[in-house]
Parts: sequence; C-alpha cells; structure tokens
Amino acid sequence: MNAPANLLNLDEFERAALAVLPQAVYDYYAGGAEDEVTLRENRAAFARYALRPRVLVDVSRIDSTVELLGKRIAGPLLIAPTAFQKLAHPEGELAAARAAAHRNTPYIASTVSTTPIEAIAAAAPGSNIWLQLYVFRDREITRELVQRAEQSGCRALCLTVTVPVQGKRERDARNQFSLPDGIEMANFSGLRQAQLPEGKGSRLEAFIQREFDDSLTWSAVEWLASISSLPILLKGICHPQDAELAIDHGAAGVIVSNHGGRQLDSAIATLDALPAVADAVDGRIPVLLDGGIRRGSDVLKALALGATATLIGRPVLWGLAVGGQAGVDAVLSLVLDEVARVSALCGLRSPTSASPDLLSRI
Amino acid sequence: MNAPANLLNLDEFERAALAVLPQAVYDYYAGGAEDEVTLRENRAAFARYALRPRVLVDVSRIDSTVELLGKRIAGPLLIAPTAFQKLAHPEGELAAARAAAHRNTPYIASTVSTTPIEAIAAAAPGSNIWLQLYVFRDREITRELVQRAEQSGCRALCLTVTVPVQGKRERDARNQFSLPDGIEMANFSGLRQAQLPEGKGSRLEAFIQREFDDSLTWSAVEWLASISSLPILLKGICHPQDAELAIDHGAAGVIVSNHGGRQLDSAIATLDALPAVADAVDGRIPVLLDGGIRRGSDVLKALALGATATLIGRPVLWGLAVGGQAGVDAVLSLVLDEVARVSALCGLRSPTSASPDLLSRI
Amino acid sequence: MNAPANLLNLDEFERAALAVLPQAVYDYYAGGAEDEVTLRENRAAFARYALRPRVLVDVSRIDSTVELLGKRIAGPLLIAPTAFQKLAHPEGELAAARAAAHRNTPYIASTVSTTPIEAIAAAAPGSNIWLQLYVFRDREITRELVQRAEQSGCRALCLTVTVPVQGKRERDARNQFSLPDGIEMANFSGLRQAQLPEGKGSRLEAFIQREFDDSLTWSAVEWLASISSLPILLKGICHPQDAELAIDHGAAGVIVSNHGGRQLDSAIATLDALPAVADAVDGRIPVLLDGGIRRGSDVLKALALGATATLIGRPVLWGLAVGGQAGVDAVLSLVLDEVARVSALCGLRSPTSASPDLLSRI
Amino acid sequence: MNAPANLLNLDEFERAALAVLPQAVYDYYAGGAEDEVTLRENRAAFARYALRPRVLVDVSRIDSTVELLGKRIAGPLLIAPTAFQKLAHPEGELAAARAAAHRNTPYIASTVSTTPIEAIAAAAPGSNIWLQLYVFRDREITRELVQRAEQSGCRALCLTVTVPVQGKRERDARNQFSLPDGIEMANFSGLRQAQLPEGKGSRLEAFIQREFDDSLTWSAVEWLASISSLPILLKGICHPQDAELAIDHGAAGVIVSNHGGRQLDSAIATLDALPAVADAVDGRIPVLLDGGIRRGSDVLKALALGATATLIGRPVLWGLAVGGQAGVDAVLSLVLDEVARVSALCGLRSPTSASPDLLSRI
Repeated sequence: MNAPANLLNLDEFERAALAVLPQAVYDYYAGGAEDEVTLRENRAAFARYALRPRVLVDVSRIDSTVELLGKRIAGPLLIAPTAFQKLAHPEGELAAARAAAHRNTPYIASTVSTTPIEAIAAAAPGSNIWLQLYVFRDREITRELVQRAEQSGCRALCLTVTVPVQGKRERDARNQFSLPDGIEMANFSGLRQAQLPEGKGSRLEAFIQREFDDSLTWSAVEWLASISSLPILLKGICHPQDAELAIDHGAAGVIVSNHGGRQLDSAIATLDALPAVADAVDGRIPVLLDGGIRRGSDVLKALALGATATLIGRPVLWGLAVGGQAGVDAVLSLVLDEVARVSALCGLRSPTSASPDLLSRI
Repeated sequence: MNAPANLLNLDEFERAALAVLPQAVYDYYAGGAEDEVTLRENRAAFARYALRPRVLVDVSRIDSTVELLGKRIAGPLLIAPTAFQKLAHPEGELAAARAAAHRNTPYIASTVSTTPIEAIAAAAPGSNIWLQLYVFRDREITRELVQRAEQSGCRALCLTVTVPVQGKRERDARNQFSLPDGIEMANFSGLRQAQLPEGKGSRLEAFIQREFDDSLTWSAVEWLASISSLPILLKGICHPQDAELAIDHGAAGVIVSNHGGRQLDSAIATLDALPAVADAVDGRIPVLLDGGIRRGSDVLKALALGATATLIGRPVLWGLAVGGQAGVDAVLSLVLDEVARVSALCGLRSPTSASPDLLSRI
Repeated sequence: MNAPANLLNLDEFERAALAVLPQAVYDYYAGGAEDEVTLRENRAAFARYALRPRVLVDVSRIDSTVELLGKRIAGPLLIAPTAFQKLAHPEGELAAARAAAHRNTPYIASTVSTTPIEAIAAAAPGSNIWLQLYVFRDREITRELVQRAEQSGCRALCLTVTVPVQGKRERDARNQFSLPDGIEMANFSGLRQAQLPEGKGSRLEAFIQREFDDSLTWSAVEWLASISSLPILLKGICHPQDAELAIDHGAAGVIVSNHGGRQLDSAIATLDALPAVADAVDGRIPVLLDGGIRRGSDVLKALALGATATLIGRPVLWGLAVGGQAGVDAVLSLVLDEVARVSALCGLRSPTSASPDLLSRI
Repeated sequence: MNAPANLLNLDEFERAALAVLPQAVYDYYAGGAEDEVTLRENRAAFARYALRPRVLVDVSRIDSTVELLGKRIAGPLLIAPTAFQKLAHPEGELAAARAAAHRNTPYIASTVSTTPIEAIAAAAPGSNIWLQLYVFRDREITRELVQRAEQSGCRALCLTVTVPVQGKRERDARNQFSLPDGIEMANFSGLRQAQLPEGKGSRLEAFIQREFDDSLTWSAVEWLASISSLPILLKGICHPQDAELAIDHGAAGVIVSNHGGRQLDSAIATLDALPAVADAVDGRIPVLLDGGIRRGSDVLKALALGATATLIGRPVLWGLAVGGQAGVDAVLSLVLDEVARVSALCGLRSPTSASPDLLSRI
C-alpha cells in the first residue's frame, strides 16, 4: 500500500516514513533548529515564484543531464549528505548509494555515516561518491579521512562550513535523542581510544564538541586542497562575498545551504540566497543548492536563478525508510521524472536552459 | 433545494455538484496538477486587485455584448472546453451547447467530448460552436476532425498548446480514475481499430501517450491554418514572446491559460500573465483568458488588464451536474447578470470599457 | 452583564448584538455583497498601517472637536445612515438621534428610516441631523423629501451615489430577509398608493427597483442643489476624478465610501481610496470616510491620510440593539474616548493634527 | 519537569509560567492594549528579516559583552522594568535583581516595584541597577525617588515617556484585575497619607490618574537632569525627531519601545521603528530596544539595525514565576547562550559587529 512505487510525491514519502520510523528518529531527520523558521522558509521561498512556460517547443527529447565536475549525471540532482542512514533502514548508506549509482546520481556520503566510506564507495559499479567532511581540530583525523576517500575512489570532497558550533535542535533535546546500540559512526571505528569519546548516545555530541573546530578560517580550505587532489566544494555558502572567497581559496564549487535549517534558525532561505551567490560566482564554478526541494518545479526554479544542480536530503531518508534501496530509487526516479516533465511543460529541452525569464515573482 | 435557480453563486454550484457527483468524477473535474498551487493561484490572483468604481454614470443601458471573431456574443464570456461532459450529466455536451446557444455564448467543444462534434454543433439553432483540438502525431486524425468541424458549422478552432506531455494529476492517480462503461471519446469512435488503443479506462491515457505530439512546434499552427479556413486560437499562451509568435504564425486569437492548473503546477496565474501578453498583442487579435473566473468582478478585472473576453470551464460542469441544460443556463445567466451588475456598479456602460484605471492593487 | 457600559470595545458590542438580534436581522446589518471581500478589506486596510507616536507633548487638553459645515462637533465622528433602525430596537432612529444629540455628533438619517425625518429631527435639542437620500426616478418624491428635511431643520443632505443598481447581498437572499409587520419605510407612508408598491417584505426591493434611477448623472447633483439651500455631500466617492467632478458640480463635501461593502464586492477599501481622493480635493471641501472604523486608532489613521472626519454605521446598530439610546450613547462615548486617548498617546493635542508622518506602512 | 533548566526556549518558559500563575496575573503580564496588534507586531517584525551568515570565521572566542554607559555588561541584554514582580514570585524584584547581578546584566527596577529600590539595589554585589521612573505631577515625589536611587547606588535613570495617559488594557478590565493584599507599591509606602490614594486594588489606577502628568514636555527631561547626576535614558522613543529632541535635551540614551504593546495599540513595532531612530542618533548615544525579543537571533537583528543592546521584560517574569532567582538566571543564561551561538553561526566574533549586511528582508 505504501510501496514506494505507489507513492505519488515526496510529501507522501515523508508521511509513509513517519508511519514506519520511531518518532525520535523521524524528528531527528525532519527537524530543524529552534523554531524551525528556516526549515519552513526553505520551502516557502520556492512558493514565491511561479513559472511562465513557453509553448510549441519540440520537447520530444528532453535531456535532463548535467555536466558536473567533468562527469555527466542523470539530472540536476545529487543526494545531500545526511547522517546515520542506518537509522532509516538496516542497509543504510549502502542502499542509498546503490540507488544513486543506478540512477547516475552523485551520492554525497556523510562523515558521520553508519557505514565506512570504503564500503559505500564500493557499493555499486558506476557510483559517483563524494565525501562530506569537516576539518577537525585534530587535523590528522581529517587527513586520514581524505586519504581513505581518495583511495576509495571518491570523486569530490564537500566541506561543510555551517557548523562552527552545533545548532540548537529542540526536538532532539525533548526526545533525548541518542544513537541506539549498534549504530556507529563507522568512519571513526578505527580511531584510537584516545581520539574518540566514550559512551553511547552522547558520543556524537561529545565528538562534535571536542573535534568541531570553531576557530576554522579560510586557510582550512587551502590546507585541505594541499592534502588532496580531489575537487573541494564548500557547503553552506549564503553570502556573495563568501562565494568570492571560496573561489579565491580554490573551491571547485559552492553549495548554497543552511544545513537544512538545522543550524542557524532564521537563516535566509537558500533560494533567496541563491541569486546573489550565483551573480558573484558568475559561472566560474558550479553553484549547487539544497534545502526545500520537493518538486521538479523547485529544481527548475533553482536552475532559473543560477544553480547548476540541486541536492535532496530528507526525501532520500524517507525513501530509505519506506523501501531501502528500492525506496531511494523510487525517490530519485520520481524527482528526475518531475524534472523532465516540468521541463517539457515549460518548453525547455533541458532544465539547464532555465533562465530568470522563466520566473515570475508572486 | 439545490435547484439551479436557487443557487446564488458559482461556489454554491460547486458544492451542489459535489453532492451529486461520484467523488472520482468530482476530483477529475475539480483537481489540478501536483500540489494544485496554480489552481489556487488562478483564483488568488483576482483577489490581489480591487475595483475603484466611478459614480453618477448613466448605466441604464448596460451593453455587455462583445464582438468576437465577427460575431456579437452575449457578454465577455465563453464556455471553455472540458472533457467528458457525460460524466456530469447524461445529456452531457448537448445540454451544455443548448444552454450556450440559448445565452448566445460560444461553446468550445472538447476534442475528447463524449458526444460527436456533429451532434454538438447541431444541438441548437444559433449555436456558436468552436472545436478545441490537438495536432496529433498522426496528422490525419487531426485533419479529419477539422473537416468534420468545418462541415458541422463550427466557427473556430482552438488549438491547445499546454499538453506536450500530460500533467501529473495526483487525485486521479489516487482514485485510479477511468472512464466508466458507456462513456466514449465520441469523436474517435470512427477511427480504425489500428488507430485507437484498446482497453477500458486506460484508453484515454493510452491514446494521449500515443497521439499527443511532444515534438510539436509553431509550424503545426501553420499546417493547421493550411488545412482550414476557420480562425485558429491558441489556448495556453502565458508568455509575451509566445503571443508574438502566435500572431506571426497566423493565430486569430490567443487564450491566456494554464489549462486550469491541470498541467504545469506552479505555472503563473493567468491574470498575472495577462498584462504582458495583452501588451505584446496590442489589440491586433483578441486575447481571451481562462482560469479562476468565479464572479462578474473577476471578468471585469480580466478585461481591465487587457482581455477581450473570458472563459469558464469548471462552473459549467457544476451547472451541468446540478441541472443539465437548465443548470448550465443558470450558470451562464448568473455570470452574465453579475457582469452587468458589476459594470453598473463600476460606472461602466459596457464591461469592455474597463481599463487599468479601474483597478487598485491590494 | 452585557450592559452597554460593560462592553469594552465595538467588537464586544457586535457580539452582544448578535446575541439579542434575530439572525436574519443581524445578517442584514452585518452582511456585505457577494463574498464580502470588501467588507473584510475595509477593516484590513486599517491594519496595514501602524502609528508612529510622538512623546513629551503636553496632551492635558486634548481637543477632539472638529469644525464641519460651520458647526463644531464633538469629534471627527458622525453616525452613518443605516436603514430600518427599528429592527434593532423599538425606539429605532429616535433613540439613535437622541444619543447623537447628547454626544454632539451628527446623525445622518437614512431615507429608508422606520421613523419619519420630522420626528427624528425633533427628537432632541441641539441635534445635528442630516438626511441621506437618493434622487429617485420620480423626482417629485425626492423634492418632497428635501423640503421636509429643510422644514425639519436638517443641516445637510447626503446623496448616496453607490446604488445605480442593488448590490448582491447573498445573506439576505439565503435568509429570505423581509421587513416584519409594523416596520415601515416611514418617510414614504404619505405617498399615494400609486407611488408605493404593495406587498409586505418585497416592498423595499420593489420600491428600489422602480424608483432607483440607474440613469442618474452628475446633473442630478446640480438639480438637487437647485431645489435646496442645504449643503450636499456625495456619499460613495472612491476615485479622485469623481472627487473633482463632485466639486465641479457643487458638492459641499464627499464621503469616501463603498456602502459598507454592501454594493460592489471587491471594491477598493475606503482607507486605500482615501489618499488619492484627499489629494484631488486638496482641502477645498471636507472629505469624510466610512467603512471599517472600529477603533479610535482607525479614526486617527483616516485623518492622517486626509479625512476630515469619519462615520460609523454598524457599531451604532449594535449599540442600539444592546441598549437603545443608552447603547448608542455608550458606543459614541467609547469611540470618542478612544480617539482622545489615542491622540494623547500619539502626542497629538487634536486628532486633526494627524498627518502622514504619523503612519508607517506595515 | 518544568524545572527552569529543562526549558528549552522562552516560549516554553511562558507556557510553564501560565501553568503556575493565576490567570489574571498572567493576563496582566502577557496582555497588551486593545486588540494587542502591537503586541503581535513586535514579534512579527523580527520574522520579516532573515539572517545571511558568513562562514569560516574564527569564532572560538565569541565576545558578547557590550560597553554601556561606561560599564561592560555580559551581552547586549538588559532586564526591562516590569511592575509588581512579587505577583510572579514571593521574592519578586530581589530574586530578579540577584539573577541579573549574577549574569552581569543590568536590571531596570520599575517605579511600581513591590520591593523598595534600596532593597533591590542592595540585593547583590556587583549589581547594575537602573531605576525606571515617571515625572509625576507632584515633582517632589519624583525628586525623592531620584535621591533614593542615587543613594542606593543606581547607575542610571530610565524615564518612561509612553504614559501621558493609561493604555486601554482590556484583559485587565475583563478580569477586574487588582493587586492582592500584601502586594504594595513599595517605593511609595513612605508617602504621606495625603499623597497616596486609599483603597485596595484601584490604588494603582487612582495613583496613576492623579500623579501621571499628561502635560509633561521635554522640559521635564531637563528638570530631571538638573536634579540628578545620573545618566537619563528615555524609554519610548519611536520617531527619529524625538530621538533628536532626546539628545538635544540631554538624554544619555534612548530606548525604542512601545511599552510592550501595552499603551498605544497599533503603534509601530519597535524593530520597524529602530532604523530611523538609529539613523537620527548616528552613534551619539546608545539606542536600546525592547518588545518582542524571544530569541538570540532577535537580538542580532536589532543590533544589525542599529541597536546597542536590547531589553527583555515578560520572559524575565516567566522565569521568575517558574523558578524565582534560578528561573530568571536560566532565562538570562538561555538568551545569552543563544546570542553567542547565533553570533558564531553568523560568523560574528561579537554580536556588536552585526550590520545591515547580515539581514535579508523576507
């Protein structure tokens, strides 16, 4: 009944996931910081634009593919990094990465995955895996991760810059959310005892408190570039001057992101932040966007305002919860289908042709 | 109690229809694509304008008539094409066309009517029937329809350009909506077996999938003009450049339409799209508008922003459901009365005198 | 418990009135045309402005009085004409006029009052009664009314220009609202049989249909001026060009009004229409406003945007329903108190000092 | 369960307080004037701005301290004066002042406190107490209060200018709110019988009616300055010209305030009034703001628009109600934590670095 193939849209996936997930896990995934204003605004920002379609264009061959970092992917769509995917489904990251590979969609593995990066990268032939990471206080931990990512064949690094300190996630505090037994931050199981804090549940928080480096500056991007030949994308750029700085410090791309509304509540919606960032970047590097994408039309709006591609995070978790690999596959398929359909209905042979002319402010 | 004559406004007609129609039929008629944003925005756009009336104008002789394609009609009002009218009432298109003729209101027959175009056109003396159509992949099907329309005395062709692919109508998917036994796409009953897909229910979808031509371009308009002497209106123009192209390719009129919110969700509300289209057309051909018209004041707002006339679709179906020909007649009468009354209250001897000066943005 | 003196604001008066009035009478008073959009917008327009107060002004002697047509009245407040006040309370217009006289507030008697104008004008010493009227098709009816008004000592005529045709009031149609036995249009009881249509209930509608003149033009204002020496105010001006015409044709004042949202639904809110009208008038004649005034702060906002004074209609009916003369007195007292208090809190020694500088658009 | 330390945000403190306070006391604290439009707008104004964070800034040493009137305080935060704190907790002002001292946060004592100013000032070492006051009709009362404040070591005077007359607080009228036995306006217990009106409950109102001076002008500020060497801040400035006048008359600071929405309903939200006031002041004196601050992000927004610091009033009462001194301490700690966290997440080493560039209008 709730088989992934029967679910008609991403909101239905979310409702189906809510029905199968423990409440605290659902809340951990679904929630945002404080009053969740940014969480809502991320979606509301899309609703402030309407599409002005063109007609009588031959759209018999919609080409949704996008060239990104030298590789052609199925559409302007990536899987955003999200933590602890085994909380959603026993196969966790492996299931999601396999579905991504099957749909030729980049999968950005979270640093705090419940499967080691090596296993994720090896999960499926043709996979296009990136590793999301932080520059930890103990830079050796980061260096080791980067080396493992390179050796595993990861194609890019995605440095999250939105967590100098942890956001205030009140749902988790209310639920006293903690990782259940058997769910591990798998990339760190090889760390020496001295490196990883002890204790179930509070482990992540303790690790974050100790290792998340609130003194990080742009030189960290240069350091990261110095230890890896992989392209580095910065995830969490909302200000045009930071976009300039990102390019100055060697970033291969920026992701306009507010961490899904989980860090700074009241932060600008990503779609609202996009135009100024895209203007500043001016085509020099790819500009990606996450936050609030729930429809193919949302993807088109982001592209019309200057994004190269978009990321979805929570919907992938809902797919995973509902049907494991098949669920994620259904989610990706659904969004890619919507992108193609909306492109056709807008008279665009490719979503990448979307320009501001497509949009009308409501 | 719900006799058409007792219903005070179009929303009451809708509620009365909801009470008598099977839910899946109501949903098929009432629903829009995806999240039905455009469905709602079509109406919301009217609410963003207020009327600034003039007073002490002699309005004792309101003339609501409009000259359209060389014929004077009762008011700035047409019946929009809607599919499968026998689902609403056993007499279907015949009842609606007779009411339209009685009220001197053009009736645009849908290509996927449940009554053949010949019977619709013959239904009533003085009828002003147009045929809505698509240019199918198999152009002979279209050519034959056009010939039948001409032979039946249809006065115009209305080419729908909003369906390169089918919109995603989730209500219908949830309801597994299909045509019941005995309801046919009557214009195609003469098609050879080979031309029409088999199987109840999925028939329309299969037909659409096979025959709807997503490679159609503006040359199709020229082709259509080459096989018919009837004026051709393009239904689904929301962009000023497409309005220019329509004129360039010989269109006799354009209809600003988003297919009632049933195709591209998040498409611009028709009233929001109207001004730029009317500007581009600059009086060279009529500019019609459909989508969200529920009050006489809505008609006036559309005319003030440049429309020559407006179309109502769903309200006609509600009239049909509630009372057959008498119901449609009551709907038309009600809207025409409201148009005359609002004109008088605005100090306009004719709704066609409405100009932007009448409007105030809220 | 609901004694007028215990009611804290006009909304409480309305709720108390709702509790004592027959539903159909409440609906007749409270309702507006069609979807009641204008009814709501009249109030919403006030909410779009905030007040930016000044401080440390000596407000120990607030002078709320206003000079209007050569007479100093208690505040920038008049009682708007409303029909059939005996529906609210057996003493009807007499009670209201007495309260008005007691509060030195002009009372504008409705043409379709349930008490003759002579009795209203004689009700109280010091009364400042105006007569609201229409120029009927049979001008002798109007001429006679004007003479009676003059002989009764009325001080002004208020010509309503918003009713070329009757608005569509759906609540009344649903309720099949009609005047109960014993409630008469008292100004017309002297009319010859031939002049007044027969039949209970439908009488007003029949009278209106026969006598309301939809061919009226500006010459009617001149005609009215030619038969009376009383100042003539035009009630229902929302367009600056009509304000110009009003002055050109000898009007002594204009009232920005949409007939309380009872005629043209979707008409511009009166506060939104005010600035352009006040600009056009440029101080040459008084500009009054009615529609949506429920708080002293609303009065101040209207004055800040150019009104000389404001009218309240429905709240007076609620006062009447709740407590007859004492109820109306309480309503007037409450609003005048609020006007004085708000003036003091804004740092204005007189509400007439309000200027656009007081306002901030929200 | 509702222990202060478990409460996650200020709204939770309010809900917890609602559960323990008598309804009439809660209403007295929580309510505003008339329709409470300004009460709501104070908060809504913050929601109209989003934050555009900067990243990769070293925020390891967030310095939230602010220099205010020559003293460095813990953050851009003060406790606003609120009346009758013993209604919230038996220890009333003493508890609040001790918590304030503990958190190095200025405590502005209300003139109508339930504890004498001497006791409040003596409550805790390191306290930074200001006295809020009015210039009464009987200026000797004010002079005496000022002397007591000086002798007690108060560091500033805060003259409230929003009460020429009392606001219309309808909740209190409905509740017939009065001070219970044993709750006194403690600063006035030494007044001669002749100076203080008799009678429980109505005492405050009678005192206000007799002593609040609606003829006060700017000369009162000069008079106050002439009798005290303490810096004088004016609380209730919303207009840039009043800010100019404040400086001209010797004010040491202004507080943009609408008295928490308790005086002039429909008054401009303080955040909306701030930019013009800050522009006029142009850094010459501190500009504080109260009204609607409920999150650290609100504080940042106020600072970005020109405020030097902000005040919270009601949240302190909720803390007091829930836990006395510990509750107030928890409230202060929570807001200061949020300010630091939000600063870090915005890439600001100090909240005082916030500029308009941080903000995006939604």
